[in-house]
Order: sequence, then structure tokens, then C-alpha cells
Amino acid sequence: MRLADLSHDDLLALHAEQTTAYEALVAQGLKLDLTRGKPSAAQLDLSNELLSLPGAGRYTDASGVDCRNYGGTQGLVEVREIFAPLLGIPVAQLVAGDNASLSIMHDTLVFSLLLGTTDGPRWVDGPAKFLCPVPGYDRHFALCEAYGIEMVPVELGPDGPDLDEVRRLVADDPSIKGMWVVPTYANPDGAVYSEAVTRALVEMPTAAPDFRIFWDNAYAVHHLTDDERPAVDVLGLAAAAGHPDRVFVFASSSKITFAGAGVSFFGSSPANVAWYLGHLSKRTIGPDKVNHLRHALFLRDAEGVRELMRAHRAILRPKFDQVEEILAKRLGELDLATWTDPEGGYFISLDVPDGTASRVVALAKGAGIAMTGAGAAFPYGRDPRDRNIRIAPSMPTPDDVAAAIDGLATCVLLAAAEQRLAV
Amino acid sequence: MRLADLSHDDLLALHAEQTTAYEALVAQGLKLDLTRGKPSAAQLDLSNELLSLPGAGRYTDASGVDCRNYGGTQGLVEVREIFAPLLGIPVAQLVAGDNASLSIMHDTLVFSLLLGTTDGPRWVDGPAKFLCPVPGYDRHFALCEAYGIEMVPVELGPDGPDLDEVRRLVADDPSIKGMWVVPTYANPDGAVYSEAVTRALVEMPTAAPDFRIFWDNAYAVHHLTDDERPAVDVLGLAAAAGHPDRVFVFASSSKITFAGAGVSFFGSSPANVAWYLGHLSKRTIGPDKVNHLRHALFLRDAEGVRELMRAHRAILRPKFDQVEEILAKRLGELDLATWTDPEGGYFISLDVPDGTASRVVALAKGAGIAMTGAGAAFPYGRDPRDRNIRIAPSMPTPDDVAAAIDGLATCVLLAAAEQRLAV
Repeated sequence: MRLADLSHDDLLALHAEQTTAYEALVAQGLKLDLTRGKPSAAQLDLSNELLSLPGAGRYTDASGVDCRNYGGTQGLVEVREIFAPLLGIPVAQLVAGDNASLSIMHDTLVFSLLLGTTDGPRWVDGPAKFLCPVPGYDRHFALCEAYGIEMVPVELGPDGPDLDEVRRLVADDPSIKGMWVVPTYANPDGAVYSEAVTRALVEMPTAAPDFRIFWDNAYAVHHLTDDERPAVDVLGLAAAAGHPDRVFVFASSSKITFAGAGVSFFGSSPANVAWYLGHLSKRTIGPDKVNHLRHALFLRDAEGVRELMRAHRAILRPKFDQVEEILAKRLGELDLATWTDPEGGYFISLDVPDGTASRVVALAKGAGIAMTGAGAAFPYGRDPRDRNIRIAPSMPTPDDVAAAIDGLATCVLLAAAEQRLAV
Repeated sequence: MRLADLSHDDLLALHAEQTTAYEALVAQGLKLDLTRGKPSAAQLDLSNELLSLPGAGRYTDASGVDCRNYGGTQGLVEVREIFAPLLGIPVAQLVAGDNASLSIMHDTLVFSLLLGTTDGPRWVDGPAKFLCPVPGYDRHFALCEAYGIEMVPVELGPDGPDLDEVRRLVADDPSIKGMWVVPTYANPDGAVYSEAVTRALVEMPTAAPDFRIFWDNAYAVHHLTDDERPAVDVLGLAAAAGHPDRVFVFASSSKITFAGAGVSFFGSSPANVAWYLGHLSKRTIGPDKVNHLRHALFLRDAEGVRELMRAHRAILRPKFDQVEEILAKRLGELDLATWTDPEGGYFISLDVPDGTASRVVALAKGAGIAMTGAGAAFPYGRDPRDRNIRIAPSMPTPDDVAAAIDGLATCVLLAAAEQRLAV
């Protein structure tokens, strides 16, 4: 029976039952953390060879450059050659950086703000807005908020944002300078931008000549099914559409090798790459090339990355299945919540009854289950319907994932019963 | 006999002699590079243990944190504990970053421009100027130039800048927001800021309440003599002077371990560290902690760093001695140039007759000897007397250093003779 159809007595019974369950949950004294999309120790172990690489006497790249010394702002060719086919970006248009693609996003934003893009004045002098498909990635939104860039939410569907709305907004408002996109297995709802949507985004007329899509392909190879779809050639489509400089692509090996000690990537048009490297060369004499060499030796080639990702999938998939199974079992019958069944990435997006997400997260916290804050997937942390909860099942052990999701389901039920009873 | 005292015939003879020498030099077809302060392969070899560290199964820090994963914005305690005593900064006030302290300087500058310091509005809204002791470090000046910060040169002596001039400028002009300082073995002239000068700089009244000294202690432990002087406690002096937030300290292991794969540091007051980490946390989820662990295991403690620096000195000192010997032999008698005899650091600063530095560097280039561009040590690349040349003897082999400096001396003599003969 659906929650909506329960009688007052049934609701009272549900409330009593879940209150008891919640008290038992609290009594367990759990300490579980599902807040962030961190790989588990078992996943990190897959790359433990890196701990001893490049190895004694190995410090030159294929061209004989001493990786230990300064220089080489664009990063080692070897590591760019491995990721170029995976990202669908020519090696010459790919830059390899240090351990965090978030940093490259930050820096391209800062360069645009203080120095302007290749085709426009610096953003800091005028109002600047970004379109933010929602739900989305909280760290993207935090960057905009930190630098005073107004965020304009647009609804995200399974294969991209509401295109009519996007087209209308960018055509009308020259202060819309950018847009966040996580094109593959989007954080948190698993959306995958189709080629048609991608084409529309790079083709659409924009009032701002210096409009930029921040294309964060964080989960390009992070498949959870046999369908290992290749990256859409966004730079090729943009060039074909006559807007070669519209797209900044970001990626990293953070959820491939070591989350905190991987290699990040920036890809774009030749003009944008020259722009980025020109400004970057004021900031650094070069990235950690020894870590690039280490990764090149470990990963070998694109197929090496694909193999490694299959090993990640073998560890991750059962956790996702477990979340699905427990949510279906505990919440399915009452039909009070919906959740995504992603084909890749790191998250499951759970929508609970409107107005209860904050309460659910607070209840979970009270039971020792740390969830990402309600609203985190929305600009300024404000979920207008207060219904979205991001589940990050990667880090805990399978048993802990099960315990956490079962506890979370209790909190969802209790909060829903409370709401309907207005207690 | 001094150049100034040579007769016209003597000058003609000198010119003919050095022209012949220069032609012979060109005929040698040298390809030597003394442009940058890069460590040599022999120096990098001293840290080759890093190539296999942290080693199989080693990935947790002393507190049990998995260094492979995300997090830990301030960096590993172990590596901060090693450098804290060397820099004279409390561990809690030290942040360990990625491979380039230049990047931290860039980011603190960008945060100040776009977000303001702890005690003032963002710099981007008003005129912002920096005092630049000269000669100085070209990459500092490049940062200011890139972001439109006007540079005001002040003369640098052996123990610090012209204090009267500095005091006058900062007292009068509220748009002077910062000052570059390389306090130990300054690039390029080897100046070492005394404790008295340091105290004066942190005590002086400034018109700008948010005035910051960018204290780049790049060569804190890079001694070339037995006098291993400790770092001046600049943060302690600043706090005692009632200006605890005036100083940002920067340092790195670039010229200690691997130039391109070391660890960088930021140190400041508790308020400034909180300010920096707060903004940094928008840019990254954490530095490469595996590299921190690698460095902690290799360097062990402050004494481990000191020992390593003595091994560097054993390689570097003979090159510096050779430069001194050749310059004295070739240029000493004619008394036409002066050069520094630094007690540490990476550079020798050579002053040739006014108006000839550009010609000397061009002649050297023609003979296959690449020197840093004349004027590089001055804001906007403009040496008002066109006399200063930076010599970076660290990278080439001893034989190549000798060949390069001998060739450079020929260029100095030829350019001087040309000038006096007005040919």
C-alpha cells in the first residue's frame, strides 16, 4: 500500500514501528560515513604498485627528459597518451597536472575572472553567472559561491539538462558566462549526456561570446555495467559547430588510481590550451612529472585503465546493488521515495517525500550515520523541495553499507510518518 | 691596469684580442645553458631513494590516515614536523602542499585579489602595488605583471633593502599592498636579511592595513659555507611587533629533493593559515599526501635535511668557486665588473659596465651560451643601468661551467671594449 493511501491508524502504527526501529538503531551506536565519494581501501589497493614506482634508476621519460627536475608545463606525453583516447581528446590538446582536477577548474575560473578568456574581458568586472544543472556537484557550486558567481539552476534529466530552458537563458543573458556539466554518470544522479544534447550545447547561440562549458568528465571510465560507452567527442563537436573554444574538459585519475595522489587533466581547443598553459606557467614551473611517470609505468595504456576500472567495478557494483536491494525492500512497498539506478559513477540519488530530506539527514546523523547534508547537490545548498539525498556507498565495507542504508531507510520512513501526522 | 685607464691603442688591442677569442669561442659550437637555477643530475641523484618510496604496503601516516585517499588539506604532520624547525615556524602554522611554492604564492596573491585578506577588501578593486627589492626573482615579478600589480623597485643591499626608502613608501601609499622578500641567499645576489632588517620590516607603520610581506625563504637551508645560519623567526617578530598577520612565508623542498616533485610549504599566523586553508579547500580536497609520506620516510627529520644539504654543497661549491676563479682571472685585472660571492643559494650576480649587459648576453647567445636575459632580475625586465647578469652555475657539469664562464668573460671584455671604442 502506498504511503499516500495509509489511514491515520496505519500512519500511527508506522510511526510507532519506525520510532522503535530508530531507537534500536541509535542504541547500536553506529559510526558510518556515506558523505563523500571516496574509494575504499580495497579499491586503493588495486594501485599499490604505485607505492614503489617509478623504481630505482627510473626517472627519464621516453624522450630522455629527467622527470625529477623542473619543467614541462604540459605534463608527460606518456601519461597524456594513455588518457587521450579515453577522454576522446587529441594528445596535443591535453594537459596533465597534479593530483586534483578541481584545482584546474578553480584555476581556469580564476584566470577567466582576473585575466579574461581568449575571447572576452575579465569576468570580475561584470556580473557573471553560471548555469547549474541540478542536482549537481557541491564542489562546483562552492567554487561559484566563493567567487561571487551567481548560480542559475536548471533541471537535469537522465540525458542532460532541460535544453529549452538552457537555450533561452544563454540566448537572453550575456552575463551567463559558464555552465557546469558532469557529462558521464553525473554526480549525484547518474545522468549521461547524450550526443544529441552535447551537440545542442555546443551549437546553441549564446549572448556571451566568451561562454564556457566546464565539462567535468570525472567519471568517464567509471562504468558499473558491461556497457562501457566511449566519451562523446565534445571538442570535435564544438569545433564542427563553429565554437571551438566553448568547452573546457576536466578529468583525473583520482577514482582510478589513488584519490589523493593521482594525475589531473585539462583538455580544450588549441587556443584555450595555449591560454591555459600561458597563465599556468606563471603559477608553476611544471607538474609532478615523477608522478606522471609512475602512472605511465603502472597503467601502461588505455586498455590498462579499462582493466583497472573493471576491477573497481567488481568491488563497487555489489555495494550499489545492496543499496538498491535494501531501499526496494524497505521503501518500495509504500511508494514514498525514488532513487537512481546508475550505470556508472559514485552516487545514488535518493528523493524522499518533499520537505523531509533535512529531517532524514538529521535523524541519520543522530544515529551515527553521516550523510552529505540535505541540499548539498543544489546551488547555495538550497534544495527547493527539500527532498534530495546523495548516497555515496563506495567507502564503507559492504556490511557497513548495508547497515547504513537500512538505518537510512528507517529515518526516511520515520520522517515521512512524522510529516503526515504533523507530529 | 683598469679598463678606465686604458689608452685608445690599448683598447684597440683589447678589442682585437677579444674579437679573436670570441671568434674561436663561436667556432667551438658550444651548447651551454646557465639560464635557470636547476639542480644537476648529480644533485638529484642524492634523493633517488624517493623513486621507490613509500614502498610496498606503506601508505598510512603516524595517525593511521590512509595517504592514498582524499583529504588532509594542511598536509601530513610528519613532513611539517621536519621542516618546521628548519623554517622557524610552529608545526600548527605550517601547511604542506604540492610540488611548487610558486603556486602557493600565486594562490595567496589570487585569494587576496579576489577575496581580500583577513583585514582588508579584495585587492582587485583598487590599485595595488608591490615593493620589489632589486635585483630580484623574475618569477615573482612575472606574477605581479600578470595580475596588473604595479611594481615599485627598491635597492637591495647585502642585508636587506634600503629601509628608509621602504619605510617612506609604505607609510605614504595605501595602495602598496605587498613586498617581495627572499630573505636568505636572495636570488640573484645572495643577500641575507639580518634580524634587525627583518624586525624593521615587521614593525614599520604601513598606510595599508592589509600590507603583506611575501617572504619566500626558498634557500633557507641552502648554505655554501660552514655557517649554517638558522632562519630568522619572522613570524615571532611580526607577532611581537603587533603585526602578526603581516607575513606570508613560502618554502619548498624543490632544491632539496626533486626540483619538480618535492613538497611546498606555507607558513603564517594562525589567522592567515585559517584564511589560506579556507580558500584552498575550495580549490582542492588535499595535497599529494603519498608524496608527503615519501619525503617524511626519506628525510626522517630536520637533521636529515641538513645532512642532505651538505651533500648538495659538496657538489655545488666547486662550481661556484670555479666561476669566481675564472671571473677573477679574466676580469679582475681590468677592474671592469663586480660579482657576488654568495654564502648560499643558487646564483652569482654579475655587474658588467653600465649599458653592456644586453650586449654581453647577446654575444654569449651567439656563442651558444644561454644566459638569463639581461634585466630579468628587475620588474618588467628593465634593468635601468643595463648592467646585471644572473649566473646560474648549478645545472651544467664543472667542465661546462668553466667553458661557459670563460666564454662569458670574453663576451664581457669584448662588449666593454666595443662600448669604449663606440664601435
